[in-house]
Amino acid sequence: MTHPKHRPATDAAFAVDERNRAKRLHERAKYDRAAVHAVLDASPLCHVAYVVDGQPYVTPTLHWRVGDRVYWHGSSASRFLKKAQGTPVCLTVSLLDGYVLARSAFHHSVNYRSAMVFGTAQLVEGREASEAALRHMMESLYPGRWDALRPVTDQELKATRVLYLDIEAASMKDRDGPPSDEPEDLTHPVWAGVIPVRHSLGAAEPDAHTPEGMAVPEGLAALIASGKLRP
Amino acid sequence: MTHPKHRPATDAAFAVDERNRAKRLHERAKYDRAAVHAVLDASPLCHVAYVVDGQPYVTPTLHWRVGDRVYWHGSSASRFLKKAQGTPVCLTVSLLDGYVLARSAFHHSVNYRSAMVFGTAQLVEGREASEAALRHMMESLYPGRWDALRPVTDQELKATRVLYLDIEAASMKDRDGPPSDEPEDLTHPVWAGVIPVRHSLGAAEPDAHTPEGMAVPEGLAALIASGKLRP
Repeated sequence: MTHPKHRPATDAAFAVDERNRAKRLHERAKYDRAAVHAVLDASPLCHVAYVVDGQPYVTPTLHWRVGDRVYWHGSSASRFLKKAQGTPVCLTVSLLDGYVLARSAFHHSVNYRSAMVFGTAQLVEGREASEAALRHMMESLYPGRWDALRPVTDQELKATRVLYLDIEAASMKDRDGPPSDEPEDLTHPVWAGVIPVRHSLGAAEPDAHTPEGMAVPEGLAALIASGKLRP
Repeated sequence: MTHPKHRPATDAAFAVDERNRAKRLHERAKYDRAAVHAVLDASPLCHVAYVVDGQPYVTPTLHWRVGDRVYWHGSSASRFLKKAQGTPVCLTVSLLDGYVLARSAFHHSVNYRSAMVFGTAQLVEGREASEAALRHMMESLYPGRWDALRPVTDQELKATRVLYLDIEAASMKDRDGPPSDEPEDLTHPVWAGVIPVRHSLGAAEPDAHTPEGMAVPEGLAALIASGKLRP
C-alpha cells in the first residue's frame, strides 16, 4: 500500500503531509478536526518543541485554542520565545488515561489521547490583540473570571509575549480498552487488565487574603465538580 | 550579573551550559541531581523532542531511568526512532499540580514540576541489553511483574527499539503555593487561591480472561493505594 504524498484539507479533516502522516499501518492516526480539537481542549497543558541552533527544546506551557489557531505565552524577557518567532514548531497535548497490563511484556501498553499539531510560531502584536488573546486564555479555563479581576495594565501587557500557530498539519492518536494478548497467552496465570489514570481537580484552597466565607465562583465550582481539567 | 559560560558537573549537580542555563533571574531553575531525578521518576510519561530535516517533533512516550541514563522505546518499524539515533534530543517530564488564581490576570499561574534533560539519542544494542532495559521499564512501574509474565520472545525483542540518552545537561523548575498578588491588589474583591490538580490511579479493572476472584498483585495494589503514578 502506498500513501498519497499529500492529502488536502477539508472542512472535516486536516491536510496530511510528511509531518503528520502516520508512518506505519497499525498507527491509527486520525486527522479529523473534531478529534484533534477535542484533545487540544481536554488539557490546559501542552509541550511545544522548537529548534534553536539545531538543538531541539521541548517546554511545557499552557495553551488555548480559537478555531484552528493555538496560542501560548510567556515573558517578553524570554529570549527563547523571541527566537522561536517565525520558526516551525510542533505542539503536542497528551493525556495518560490508563495502564494496560497484559500477560506478556510485549503487549503492555497505555491508554491515552494525544494530539500533535504543526505550524509556524507567530507573535500576537499590539495591545488590543494581546489583551484579547489573554482574555481568551482566562475564559478558556475560568469562564467569567476576566471581568471580575483587577484590569490588566499596559506594563503587564508589555511584559507578556503571546505566540500562536495556525494549524498547518495535525494528527490525533488514542488507545482505549483492555490488553490485546496473543490468543495462546490468555490462560497464562497472571492478573491482566487496566488501571485507570485519573486527572481531576481537588477542593479549592482560598489564599490568606480571601475574605472568610467568600464563595468559590460558580464557574470554578462547576469546573471542579465536572471531574475534568477544563470546562 | 553575568552568568558563567559553563559550570562543570559535580556529584550533586548537573553541568550548566547553553542548553539548560536559566535565561532570566527569576526563573528559579535547579540543577541538582536529586531534584531532576525526582521529577523524572514522578511520572511515567515524558515528551521527547527530535529534529528531523530541520522540523521539530515532540512525541509523548513512556520513559524510565537508571542513574543518569533515561530510556524510552518504540517499534523497530518506526522510521522516526531510527532517524533519531545519534541526534541531540530534549526530554521533558511535566506535572501540573494546581491552578493558581490571583486578583489580576497577570499573576495567574500554575503550580507544577518539570524536568528538562538533554543528551544524544542512542540505541540499546543486542538481545541481552534490550531485554535488561525492558525488564527495568516493567519493574519501574510494576515491581515483581516481569517474572510473572509469559517470557519475552526473540521476535518481540527484534520488534522493539530501545533508545536512551545519558544526561549531558539538565534542569528542573517548579512552583508551589498561593498566588503572589501585588500588595495593592490584596483587597480586590475576588476569590483567589489554588485549585489542586490530582493525578491518581483508579480501581484496577481485570480483563475478561482474568479468572474471577484472582487478586490484584500486591505491588499493583500498593501502587494504586499510594496515590502516586509510579512506585
